[in-house]
Amino acid sequence: MEGIDVLSLPIALPDGVDYNDYIIGTYYCSFPKGVPVSKLAPALAVEQSTGTWLPVPGETAEVKRKYVAKVIGVYETPDYEFEVPADTSDRHYIIQIAYPEVNIGEQIPMLLTTVVGNISMAGKIKLLDLRFPEKYVKAFRGPKFGIQGVRKLLGVFDRPLLNNMIKPCTGYTLEVGAELFRQAALGGCDIIKDDELIADASFNSVQARVKRYMQIEKEVFEEKGERTLYTVNISDEVPKVFENAKKAIEAGANALMVNYFAVGFSVLRALAEDTSINVPILAHMDVTGAMYMSPYHGVSSHLMLGKLPRLAGADIVVIPAPYGKAPVLADKFVKTAYNLTFPLYNLNPTFPMPSGGITPSMVPNVIKDLGPDIVIGSGGGIHAHPGGPIAGAKAFRQAIDATMKGIPLDKAKEDYKELREALEKWQDPFGKGIGI
Amino acid sequence: MEGIDVLSLPIALPDGVDYNDYIIGTYYCSFPKGVPVSKLAPALAVEQSTGTWLPVPGETAEVKRKYVAKVIGVYETPDYEFEVPADTSDRHYIIQIAYPEVNIGEQIPMLLTTVVGNISMAGKIKLLDLRFPEKYVKAFRGPKFGIQGVRKLLGVFDRPLLNNMIKPCTGYTLEVGAELFRQAALGGCDIIKDDELIADASFNSVQARVKRYMQIEKEVFEEKGERTLYTVNISDEVPKVFENAKKAIEAGANALMVNYFAVGFSVLRALAEDTSINVPILAHMDVTGAMYMSPYHGVSSHLMLGKLPRLAGADIVVIPAPYGKAPVLADKFVKTAYNLTFPLYNLNPTFPMPSGGITPSMVPNVIKDLGPDIVIGSGGGIHAHPGGPIAGAKAFRQAIDATMKGIPLDKAKEDYKELREALEKWQDPFGKGIGI
Repeated sequence: MEGIDVLSLPIALPDGVDYNDYIIGTYYCSFPKGVPVSKLAPALAVEQSTGTWLPVPGETAEVKRKYVAKVIGVYETPDYEFEVPADTSDRHYIIQIAYPEVNIGEQIPMLLTTVVGNISMAGKIKLLDLRFPEKYVKAFRGPKFGIQGVRKLLGVFDRPLLNNMIKPCTGYTLEVGAELFRQAALGGCDIIKDDELIADASFNSVQARVKRYMQIEKEVFEEKGERTLYTVNISDEVPKVFENAKKAIEAGANALMVNYFAVGFSVLRALAEDTSINVPILAHMDVTGAMYMSPYHGVSSHLMLGKLPRLAGADIVVIPAPYGKAPVLADKFVKTAYNLTFPLYNLNPTFPMPSGGITPSMVPNVIKDLGPDIVIGSGGGIHAHPGGPIAGAKAFRQAIDATMKGIPLDKAKEDYKELREALEKWQDPFGKGIGI
Repeated sequence: MEGIDVLSLPIALPDGVDYNDYIIGTYYCSFPKGVPVSKLAPALAVEQSTGTWLPVPGETAEVKRKYVAKVIGVYETPDYEFEVPADTSDRHYIIQIAYPEVNIGEQIPMLLTTVVGNISMAGKIKLLDLRFPEKYVKAFRGPKFGIQGVRKLLGVFDRPLLNNMIKPCTGYTLEVGAELFRQAALGGCDIIKDDELIADASFNSVQARVKRYMQIEKEVFEEKGERTLYTVNISDEVPKVFENAKKAIEAGANALMVNYFAVGFSVLRALAEDTSINVPILAHMDVTGAMYMSPYHGVSSHLMLGKLPRLAGADIVVIPAPYGKAPVLADKFVKTAYNLTFPLYNLNPTFPMPSGGITPSMVPNVIKDLGPDIVIGSGGGIHAHPGGPIAGAKAFRQAIDATMKGIPLDKAKEDYKELREALEKWQDPFGKGIGI
């Protein structure tokens, strides 16, 4: 830390400084006992704004005042006051740093570079939260449809929506997929999505799927009177992802899907803010675990799955649910859903879509935990129903309707064959409340 | 794992299967002692290709044969043969999975979705390596210039290149930056880059910097006869990043820089494969640590910093060096440089640019460890020289020239004032060989 002018840095935003000029990052950090955090924290702030590890001529007082990031909080856990126990090797901190918004501009790539850029390589430092000032968020359009917009398209306002992902994930022909689509739609799925593993494949193109599935959507609507959104996966390189979107819209798509972290946040934003794309966007979470799964490094799940895709304009975000196969802490799951929906300036709320090994038996718990403004995602839990996908979708709708009426599933199953079969097949295989 | 038809899956690619049809991913995994890896490994392979956690009707034998991913290796470390010690709680594995290339296509987003997608959230699983078949790599143009192309532009073939990053990182005016640029160029820097924290800022635009700095580049060339590449940071949202590139080229830029992971691999590829961009691209590493720093999760550094940006077309990649402030294992550092340069089908080698706290005293070790085909990056080590940036750059060039002639710095400093001053200021502050 030699040479860093730490004492001249404010450790709190000075009185009179406008918090609306700063983006506040909160970090978990761990350092060996002997490292002086009082010097290290300001060093991190300087490193991620104006400075380098040595004082240089151009870093004037004026530059520092306006452009340097400021440490506004350092909290140790546990908070030693008298002495650090002799057997302690590492000490743990929560550090808050305020970054001048002007350094970043109203965009996501330079936000990431600033708040997790080089410090992502600097040791045990994990970004836990970001607080944005209004002027930053206002420059984003956010979800074009959001929860209410998607509900309006479907005409469904009073219950969770049901999503089915077509399985197998990839490697199937157009007609195999079309038949699965028809059955899931007939069974009552509100939204049907591609798996994240298939997009514009050589053996099964985006355009062909949209044309065929949307024809089926019309036929099912005529038969049942319920609309179905088909979120076609357009994930691809830049600029092909945009060509895929254009082709999908021209072919009549009523929704899109994108693997948002694999293609990049700014691709999601460009799609969401394109006024010629007048359909909702479902954002798939894959690859984000590589950023959030470590307790010591990377970026928290509720940012990766919550605040950031919402900022970039996702109408629905698929999130891993703790009821089934995904290892997710209940607290983190709820916090992610909260980040998708809480009041955030001008941004519409985004639909959380818990997914991963969900069967009808888990529906009451999902609704209890997150409320009715969710999309419930199920793949195999619909397609592998003993009575086939139509029955599988019906079983879910029955579970949703019963729960919304306050009827326990054990009672509801007496009236509903499909629900009964589902509950018999999947006797709460993983199912347990998440205890919140 | 209930219901997965694991026994029908080959655990090695069958004889007669063309390895050129597969991308092979190698993973580190850790599971509790009781988990049967013989079932879990194929389950992972199925999850990331055709399947889901339950058997579904569309997953036919034909679909499986052609599109399912195959486990081709499971190796335990240590390799227990007789019994697992009673005090073992977790067991550790290297697992290799072959993914049908047809599932992915010749692109990076669907590659990431397939090889690290949902399994990034599945527990302790880290992607260690990817082996690509020729047809996959051949669809990429790769580095347009590469090591030899950049050398030709500069007319420098027989020594490491010297790069300076302008410091302070951000918050300075055009004229402050221009003066630092002039001095670094006069001192002998071959390449001068923006810091990753400044791009097209409201207070200092890409276009203005390119025009001003390229004018200075011409003046310095007339004075000294040496060319200087200026890598202007165009990082931004899509599509603004492409507009920034266009404006930079129109303003006379002779090189570009992009924070490649913050903007997305496919943005880097689109820039590199755009034939109207006839200048080299320097790729900055920031944010990648969030993916690679955990020993248990994410994606290894030599993929994030090596093979993937090379595939996407980076001519130079900034990598954290173990000599200075970055905590990097020597093995990983060398492996990353190797991934940037080893023979890889049609791809040009990419310049590794070790960076982070490097001072002239470390030059002999850097060259000993990586050889002369590198760019040596220094920010504060140039600007904070007691004699100013011109002297700082001279000191580095003196250290490079002496080392290439086999003269120890302790001897060379007798003839070179700037080198002597640098060695006196930074008496090997962190400097040590990395012992390889």
